[in-house]
Amino acid sequence: MKTTDVAIIGGSAAGLAAASTMMRRHPEKKVTMIRNVSHTVVPCGIPYVYGTLGAVKKNIIPDTQFEEAGVEIIAKHVDRIDRRNKQVVFDDGDLLAYDKLILSTGSKPFLPPIAGVDLDNVFCIQKDPAHLQTILDALRPARNVVVIGGGFIGVEMAEQIALMESSAEHIRLVEMLPHCLMTACEEEFCIVAERELERSGVEVMTGCQVKAIHGEGAVQSVELADGRHLDADVVVIGIGASPNIDLAVASDLVADPRNGVAVTAAMETEDPDIYSAGDCATKFSFLSGEPSAIRLASIAASEGMIAAGNLYSETARETLGTLGAFATKVGERSIAAAGLTTQAAAEQKRDVVVGEAVASNMHPGSLPQAIADMKVKLLFDRNDGCLIGGHVCGGDSSAELANAISVAVQARLTAHDLAVMQYATHPLLTASPVAYQLMVAAENALIQLGAE
Amino acid sequence: MKTTDVAIIGGSAAGLAAASTMMRRHPEKKVTMIRNVSHTVVPCGIPYVYGTLGAVKKNIIPDTQFEEAGVEIIAKHVDRIDRRNKQVVFDDGDLLAYDKLILSTGSKPFLPPIAGVDLDNVFCIQKDPAHLQTILDALRPARNVVVIGGGFIGVEMAEQIALMESSAEHIRLVEMLPHCLMTACEEEFCIVAERELERSGVEVMTGCQVKAIHGEGAVQSVELADGRHLDADVVVIGIGASPNIDLAVASDLVADPRNGVAVTAAMETEDPDIYSAGDCATKFSFLSGEPSAIRLASIAASEGMIAAGNLYSETARETLGTLGAFATKVGERSIAAAGLTTQAAAEQKRDVVVGEAVASNMHPGSLPQAIADMKVKLLFDRNDGCLIGGHVCGGDSSAELANAISVAVQARLTAHDLAVMQYATHPLLTASPVAYQLMVAAENALIQLGAE
Repeated sequence: MKTTDVAIIGGSAAGLAAASTMMRRHPEKKVTMIRNVSHTVVPCGIPYVYGTLGAVKKNIIPDTQFEEAGVEIIAKHVDRIDRRNKQVVFDDGDLLAYDKLILSTGSKPFLPPIAGVDLDNVFCIQKDPAHLQTILDALRPARNVVVIGGGFIGVEMAEQIALMESSAEHIRLVEMLPHCLMTACEEEFCIVAERELERSGVEVMTGCQVKAIHGEGAVQSVELADGRHLDADVVVIGIGASPNIDLAVASDLVADPRNGVAVTAAMETEDPDIYSAGDCATKFSFLSGEPSAIRLASIAASEGMIAAGNLYSETARETLGTLGAFATKVGERSIAAAGLTTQAAAEQKRDVVVGEAVASNMHPGSLPQAIADMKVKLLFDRNDGCLIGGHVCGGDSSAELANAISVAVQARLTAHDLAVMQYATHPLLTASPVAYQLMVAAENALIQLGAE
Repeated sequence: MKTTDVAIIGGSAAGLAAASTMMRRHPEKKVTMIRNVSHTVVPCGIPYVYGTLGAVKKNIIPDTQFEEAGVEIIAKHVDRIDRRNKQVVFDDGDLLAYDKLILSTGSKPFLPPIAGVDLDNVFCIQKDPAHLQTILDALRPARNVVVIGGGFIGVEMAEQIALMESSAEHIRLVEMLPHCLMTACEEEFCIVAERELERSGVEVMTGCQVKAIHGEGAVQSVELADGRHLDADVVVIGIGASPNIDLAVASDLVADPRNGVAVTAAMETEDPDIYSAGDCATKFSFLSGEPSAIRLASIAASEGMIAAGNLYSETARETLGTLGAFATKVGERSIAAAGLTTQAAAEQKRDVVVGEAVASNMHPGSLPQAIADMKVKLLFDRNDGCLIGGHVCGGDSSAELANAISVAVQARLTAHDLAVMQYATHPLLTASPVAYQLMVAAENALIQLGAE
């Protein structure tokens, strides 16, 4: 029987981060990474396969660095974990004895409970190169494409499909809520994203519910609740995902279909030799401490690193909880955030003070490619004064600016703290020092606090 | 006699930030901004006048927004401040009575004590549009240009002169130290900057001291200490600046030629109605509390905001002290930092733990324009574990990534804090979540700390 020190089940963000952490912290340990796909795709890179990259193979994470470090990669399906004997049981009956195990089986795309989701050329997004190639082959000759779901995946897929060399005449994005990206972004930035989508050639249909998908064998149209029918040769569904707890359930680990495999903040399951990290594991909110449904590759990577770091450590490192730090780019605009939206803060009945600032992303604004109206919006909790959310819309530096905000939220900084801090600025890279958005937005929040 | 509520003397970063703060906080107050130039140039934008922008007028900050808010702008020379009568005394005898005054007279370029600095076509950089135009007119027909000083101004000027449409055959950058940018950047990143300069067509001559500048009427050559002579039609000198305390001295305010006008952390001078901010004011280091010689537009803007906010406030807001947060771009590489370099930490006899991480600035690395080796280097003080410096070299998001580091330094975060925090990532905008440099560099520092 094969043996390993650490078995990592799942090879996406959490699994990769766990393997990388083991390589850094414990090069002496034998690590085995098990996955049920031939190669690991860059999960967030999937939409870009269809436009900017143009090929599935350009979005593959090479195994080389892991194999060179001695990590064994097994591409097989796992049937269950025999916890008593500390063995991974594969479909084909093979066994792998482990000392410690990290369960990072990710999530499963959610399918809407409507007729026609099983028709040919109706796809959800799975992190499997063969599956992504099938979608690419279907999209190339398609004339009418409907993307269902206006979250990150749906928005990025629609934009990239509009960029690809194809015969597409109509690319439609159908979203149930009043705006795309609405659960993650401020409404004003959702509107920016929709404008950029339209400029890219995507017809954005918000406030539209899908009633059924029709076709004979293959999809032919999508029926909306209002009675309209949209022609469709290909339908892409991106309406969310749920934790993949199948293996945990088969192995008698406590797991909830909605929240995932039960773990502590140190990513431990109830089995002292099994940790779980990533989309499959339970999460709690950094800000509220309540269970959290936010699932991102960045959270998975952080959890994978924490889990692996704890396997052979005497002191347990703990996750701070999910924050919701993310970034996207639609057309010419990048949108990024960390923490709560105005709407989420209202739902948590938080009393919020907002500070905003708009400035060019370069200075002077006469520089070529300057985006004049890069905006930062900061939300502070009036009770303790702490930053609880920040949103950025502008140039490509938005993501790292959101990371400055993310650090500030997690360090529980106030508007006063941010207003007196010093920031690096440069004509080609940031707003001017006088107008630097993070400083000025904090100052504007302070002014409101002082004026009350 | 004219009167004003707030007189701001000096119209660059500190003065503009002070005026903007007054507009936001006290729109009811009459503000008068006094400057000795016709228009305010974007100070950090000056090098870009010569290449990317191509014209002085593209680097002017419009007065419109200030004038529309009721700020009066006076372009005249001030002789002294009559503090007893609370009046600004102009050269021409005019008087302006003030309630509060902000002294933000900036700095004066430092001239090396060598022969020939007074020759025609030998320039230092002054924030005066007419002066910048004279330099532009001299550069256009020049065949041999020598830039003396490899700090930010020298490096950016040399790179931009290499970009401009001119007859220049040789553009040489002469630096006394072993590397350009050495007082601000890690040595490895100085080398990157030098490589980019060479690729841009600049001959970088480090470890070279200038002995004299020669010519008859106009400059003809630069003589180095090693005896070499460099042909030169134009010489640009950028070797630093000293606080402009002339007006403070003429007005009997405590001021030191090296450190500037004496101020508290609230930017108050010894005169309760006079504040001072920007390059002309004394500074202390955030990290050591000692007097600081770091002078940046971003520091000036922060101080201007703090000074103006304190004028009519019952509680005094204080600066945290200078950190040294900056960014630059040379060729295709952006370099940014916050806090101490390895060398500065050694000079302060700090025991430092370094954590490094290298990853592509986009993911997958197959994306067009990806920079494969964007590097973050973090310095932690072993005594208290706190981050005391961070350095970034890579794509254009380096500046905002340095701002995440800047926030972390100023919030006194540790490697543990940064390793478990969550960060926004996106294929087109950042490294992958598994390789995100700030997280991984902190983790690598932690591993070293744990291994000891």
